Amino acid sequence: MRVDLNADLGESFGRYRLGLDEEVMNYITSANVAAGWHAGDPLVMRRTVRLAKEKGVAVGVHPGYPDLMGFGRRYMRLTPEEARNYILYQVGALYAFVRAEGLELQHVKPHGALYNALVREEELARAVIEGIADFDRKLIFVTLANSPPAELAEEMGVRVAHEAFADRAYNPDGTLVPRGKPGAVIEDPTEVVQRAVSMVKDGGVRAINGEWIDLRVDTICLHGDNPHAVEIARAVRRALEEEGVRVVPMGEFL
Amino acid sequence: MRVDLNADLGESFGRYRLGLDEEVMNYITSANVAAGWHAGDPLVMRRTVRLAKEKGVAVGVHPGYPDLMGFGRRYMRLTPEEARNYILYQVGALYAFVRAEGLELQHVKPHGALYNALVREEELARAVIEGIADFDRKLIFVTLANSPPAELAEEMGVRVAHEAFADRAYNPDGTLVPRGKPGAVIEDPTEVVQRAVSMVKDGGVRAINGEWIDLRVDTICLHGDNPHAVEIARAVRRALEEEGVRVVPMGEFL
Amino acid sequence: MRVDLNADLGESFGRYRLGLDEEVMNYITSANVAAGWHAGDPLVMRRTVRLAKEKGVAVGVHPGYPDLMGFGRRYMRLTPEEARNYILYQVGALYAFVRAEGLELQHVKPHGALYNALVREEELARAVIEGIADFDRKLIFVTLANSPPAELAEEMGVRVAHEAFADRAYNPDGTLVPRGKPGAVIEDPTEVVQRAVSMVKDGGVRAINGEWIDLRVDTICLHGDNPHAVEIARAVRRALEEEGVRVVPMGEFL
Amino acid sequence: MRVDLNADLGESFGRYRLGLDEEVMNYITSANVAAGWHAGDPLVMRRTVRLAKEKGVAVGVHPGYPDLMGFGRRYMRLTPEEARNYILYQVGALYAFVRAEGLELQHVKPHGALYNALVREEELARAVIEGIADFDRKLIFVTLANSPPAELAEEMGVRVAHEAFADRAYNPDGTLVPRGKPGAVIEDPTEVVQRAVSMVKDGGVRAINGEWIDLRVDTICLHGDNPHAVEIARAVRRALEEEGVRVVPMGEFL
Repeated sequence: MRVDLNADLGESFGRYRLGLDEEVMNYITSANVAAGWHAGDPLVMRRTVRLAKEKGVAVGVHPGYPDLMGFGRRYMRLTPEEARNYILYQVGALYAFVRAEGLELQHVKPHGALYNALVREEELARAVIEGIADFDRKLIFVTLANSPPAELAEEMGVRVAHEAFADRAYNPDGTLVPRGKPGAVIEDPTEVVQRAVSMVKDGGVRAINGEWIDLRVDTICLHGDNPHAVEIARAVRRALEEEGVRVVPMGEFL
Repeated sequence: MRVDLNADLGESFGRYRLGLDEEVMNYITSANVAAGWHAGDPLVMRRTVRLAKEKGVAVGVHPGYPDLMGFGRRYMRLTPEEARNYILYQVGALYAFVRAEGLELQHVKPHGALYNALVREEELARAVIEGIADFDRKLIFVTLANSPPAELAEEMGVRVAHEAFADRAYNPDGTLVPRGKPGAVIEDPTEVVQRAVSMVKDGGVRAINGEWIDLRVDTICLHGDNPHAVEIARAVRRALEEEGVRVVPMGEFL
Repeated sequence: MRVDLNADLGESFGRYRLGLDEEVMNYITSANVAAGWHAGDPLVMRRTVRLAKEKGVAVGVHPGYPDLMGFGRRYMRLTPEEARNYILYQVGALYAFVRAEGLELQHVKPHGALYNALVREEELARAVIEGIADFDRKLIFVTLANSPPAELAEEMGVRVAHEAFADRAYNPDGTLVPRGKPGAVIEDPTEVVQRAVSMVKDGGVRAINGEWIDLRVDTICLHGDNPHAVEIARAVRRALEEEGVRVVPMGEFL
Repeated sequence: MRVDLNADLGESFGRYRLGLDEEVMNYITSANVAAGWHAGDPLVMRRTVRLAKEKGVAVGVHPGYPDLMGFGRRYMRLTPEEARNYILYQVGALYAFVRAEGLELQHVKPHGALYNALVREEELARAVIEGIADFDRKLIFVTLANSPPAELAEEMGVRVAHEAFADRAYNPDGTLVPRGKPGAVIEDPTEVVQRAVSMVKDGGVRAINGEWIDLRVDTICLHGDNPHAVEIARAVRRALEEEGVRVVPMGEFL
């Protein structure tokens, strides 16, 4: 049994600080680093990649919509050609810092509203995966576990990491219950930890209606926005290790 | 005798078109492609790199200030750390498209006000050169012929292309007469062509006061903004070849 | 019989030029001026407002999505609070130039994808109208003739101009046939002119399936992107006047 | 004896929070609200203007360079025409929110590197003051006490507020000792409070070399970046009132 733990990092911008990157880096194995479109700037990217290097955390790109004001959380209608080249641009921009620090780029995880749009729009998903493959077919595409884009990437010969969310409720079809709906976010740390462990050991999760869903879980998403989130990250990491799960970067087993 | 001919390309943005890229690509050997900060966007970058590939033109990055509204032509005071990482970001962003098209990145030529600031500010020049070397020490740094940054790059072990401007008047110290001063821009096509040929064959140029200046000329800057500029580019290319000068990408001889 | 003729102007940005503003200004009565979000910048805004003043053309704001790269032509999902305040911001920004030139602000016409989204999303339309009313309840809101937002604005006590498109095909429900569908855009100048005249004189238009649709037509949208469009604008203006239609700014009769 | 107390507010952007606006609003009489160029966005502007209204604080615009990534703290070389229209744009944008909330706009205080550049560049200062006057000649221009732009504004018939900094060391010529130089920033709260009181009561300040400088002090700049700064703001306000100084918005006495 093995799993990767990932978190979104490098989301500061200019004078604006966001996220407890230094702390959450202690518990994760893969960092999704913003590339300056919805968050992040070149100084932040450099600092974040360096921090990952120090902590031995694998680095990936976290590309988003060109929408700093909306933090990449608002849906935008992109053509496939736009999506493909927007991904490529952001992958290259982050790659420069990874290369400057003597590291390898491990993965690409789309951010926010783009992440969600991929699950619904096949043409968009195809374009994003093409953008990744344009750069390097060996990069791992991180997407919602057992979702259409995960299947599509496999068909297209691109490596995929199936991602699960221990702190989010699931619909019976494997999609996430949208934030804002009652019960969408699981606040209780103990429950989050238990769900994380069960996701890896039992290979699935119980949906909001009580039904069991089988999921392939390669990586679990953690957060570093606030001290509480970091505390959960720490607890999830510890619980997984106590259960004998190998917590290692996705690149080691995918 | 050999020389490279370069031009700034890929300066369109979104719905905005700029430059006769397709035409001027017929006469140059190296393209400086904007990377989305002062001009260019991912679709334009893709298209421009593809066009260079079709035409057999070598590709470089044309990084600028983060100032689309000012087209990178206004001085901004950057810290060395900012400059270094801004360069790195833009180099990586363009590299992605070059890699996607199966090409190699040849050079980096700073744009506009940044190009000029390097000649005056040593610390800034050092930071820009470090940013280039952070990515790849084999990239060629294009800067004003016989200028302080050219010398600095040599000291720092980074390849340099000394650039000359056939359509600009020179001060006796080898700097350009600023646009706006009388005689700063040479409009007569015949004179531009003669100066280009003389720069390569005689290794220098006559300054605005009549004094001769020795210059190392690896590459000459041409323009593709308008039909007249393209006409000059064509004439310069032909005249050089007729004089027996090998017109080849700078990467072949530097 | 009276009608207003409007066009989108001031869409240049920095070094990028767009539109034959000077020419099309000769034929219209109301200018929709971009406010720096999807197009335009402060220098362009000043210049465009001055030009309108010289030509005696009434000035309105043309607010759009915060998406210069997409020219405001891509749908973005905004909350009502965002939409309301984005409109207010852009109205204020353009108002400053109108005030500096001693003019009055006449109207607000949302741009591109935002214009279209209003027709489909009631909550968004309400927010946009509130943003306009927040600034000045006497501003005229320009929207698709006989559409839900037109009705909503009337309910909300905000003045409305019903807008028609002489060069676009209509569905029988009064919406426009989307660009890209066959027959969506009417290219023949003579037909465009005839439709414009008929819209005003007969109070409607024949839909793509041949059905007649009654429309209230306060203003007709013209274009100034290219010489052909300007030619049509000129012809429409002349034909209307020859038919005895008073062509005057919407503010004079609404 | 009377004085105004001002602070820079509304500097959050999108998901990024900055400043303890709610707290510092309790102690100031004038708020300088960012207008979306170096900081701020339409939602933040609306919220900040509302907050000022609730607290009875007068509202002004805090226009800056178009440089969100640099937070307006980096010098950019603007032409006078650019400066004039950039100011006008930002004044209008903020005015919209002030008008929507039924308030009046009181003043304009340039931000950061632009504030400093005005003191050194007369042509730039003239352009900024023209931009203010273009909108409304009754707006108050806030600038460094006894500085060249203060004098220029008076000549140009624009109202001026002379501003002093109780927490900054002064050179004998009345300019501020640049941050970074030893002793530039006065950290001791007691000293800051004493200097504030002395500035108002004695009409000047002791320069870093011990020399006395006469200053006209209409407004003192306070900060709300951190709890310590808010504590100082509170203490300055209380000390001034205890000394019998009327602390009121600058618009009441200028």
